[in-house]
Amino acid sequence: MPNYAYVDGKYCNKINAKTFIDDRGYQFGDSVYEVIIYREGIFLDLEGHIKRLRNSLKSLDFIFKMSNQSLLIIIKHLLRINKINFGSIYIQISRGICERDHSYHNMKLKPVLVITTKKIKNDFEEIIDGINVVLIKDTRWSHPDIKTVQLLPNVLAKTYAKKNSADEAIFFDENDFVTEGSSSNVWILTQDNILITRSLDGSILPGITRNTIFECAKHNKISIKEKKFKIKDLINAKEVFITSASSFVTPVKKVDNLIINNGYEKQFSNLLRKTYLNLYK
Amino acid sequence: MPNYAYVDGKYCNKINAKTFIDDRGYQFGDSVYEVIIYREGIFLDLEGHIKRLRNSLKSLDFIFKMSNQSLLIIIKHLLRINKINFGSIYIQISRGICERDHSYHNMKLKPVLVITTKKIKNDFEEIIDGINVVLIKDTRWSHPDIKTVQLLPNVLAKTYAKKNSADEAIFFDENDFVTEGSSSNVWILTQDNILITRSLDGSILPGITRNTIFECAKHNKISIKEKKFKIKDLINAKEVFITSASSFVTPVKKVDNLIINNGYEKQFSNLLRKTYLNLYK
Repeated sequence: MPNYAYVDGKYCNKINAKTFIDDRGYQFGDSVYEVIIYREGIFLDLEGHIKRLRNSLKSLDFIFKMSNQSLLIIIKHLLRINKINFGSIYIQISRGICERDHSYHNMKLKPVLVITTKKIKNDFEEIIDGINVVLIKDTRWSHPDIKTVQLLPNVLAKTYAKKNSADEAIFFDENDFVTEGSSSNVWILTQDNILITRSLDGSILPGITRNTIFECAKHNKISIKEKKFKIKDLINAKEVFITSASSFVTPVKKVDNLIINNGYEKQFSNLLRKTYLNLYK
Repeated sequence: MPNYAYVDGKYCNKINAKTFIDDRGYQFGDSVYEVIIYREGIFLDLEGHIKRLRNSLKSLDFIFKMSNQSLLIIIKHLLRINKINFGSIYIQISRGICERDHSYHNMKLKPVLVITTKKIKNDFEEIIDGINVVLIKDTRWSHPDIKTVQLLPNVLAKTYAKKNSADEAIFFDENDFVTEGSSSNVWILTQDNILITRSLDGSILPGITRNTIFECAKHNKISIKEKKFKIKDLINAKEVFITSASSFVTPVKKVDNLIINNGYEKQFSNLLRKTYLNLYK
């Protein structure tokens, strides 16, 4: 059975799915995206992802006229024909197709919508031991707060992580403050049980999972502070974890081969992971 | 007659030319490019462009095995079938096609080569009055010295220029130093006839035309300094000009609506433009 993709109005076999070489997404990275997790009839944080997608489109002046309802009809149809019970949905919208020209001024461009789905394992484990991460200088453009495909720095960072037997790379800025992961937000729990994550100061993506974790923390009566923290705070934390649509809440075991908190139980991280996963059961 | 493009091994009508949605160029901006000008049998600065393309590929670990000779055979064939006497050649190479994954670690990817050509007017004027430019904060990632399609900041800058009746946007850094244009290098001639352009300090693209202009300046016995200069130096310059493959040397008339040097004759800029164009006659 083919794995179907939706590309600019048509359903087609993903293996053959193509876009024009004059797609601005291809020539300029002039494109935005979202990833949403689906679990037996339930979309995780659907509203938040769609809202952020709309914000990205608006920030970059894309004229995308499709309603959320129509978007959802396509997504649901794709999940059905791809027979997906547990999966991730990838939505990418580029500004449109035109002869290569940096400026889009006075162009009436029709955005190109691409949607694909992928099966994921039905093993949403509630307790996990944690991943290894590496630290890397943040080299991204000044708008990581917009979810665009300007992802080459993230690609290089994630590859650097994998090469060093780690699963994620965490960016730090010119003053050694942690920004975020290459595809995740970063959190620390201090030795006195305060949960800290960087505020939405323009240098991180406004994570949708991040947002829901605030609710999960409140539910569990954990104190939260939104503020910048340094590499040394990360290394000396009681717990470190990352959040993203596809990793939910994932504890961090090692940072650049330093074991966090002597490897003790990731109690708070796993409590938040469990609380998050239970929201969408 | 169709306008042909070369896409991953095949010549096809450019109107229908497509690449896969799983092309990493599309999903991550994981792609490099070059633009070369062609004029009646002569490629302008061909060697420099091919060398820079190889440097970009190397910087990003692309495994691109095609020889320069083969590349040139394709380019020449495309120019022939598209009946181009005066034109620009666009070469884009992405890392390859694979299921979406930030990391390319341990992947054996075959790069995708796309080449297109475009006719340009045979009016390589030797003397021009100049363009308007606007100033804009440099928001690019930390490697504008690699010629990749991480071009959204450039797209936004060029669009901002066009919206403000200008032809180019010039980036400045956090300390008001000029970096470069959205698709050009920037030069000033001081009131005492010293030509200044920013050095290759990692914050600008190593312009191929820029490089040749050094030779042109030497030929005309003009003193050159490679160093950073500020917005105020730009505004108070005797002459300002930009260089790029497709604009050659282009004088600047106004910066943010301020007329440079009371609008006096762009003597040095046009001398360099003429010298450059005569190199390839």
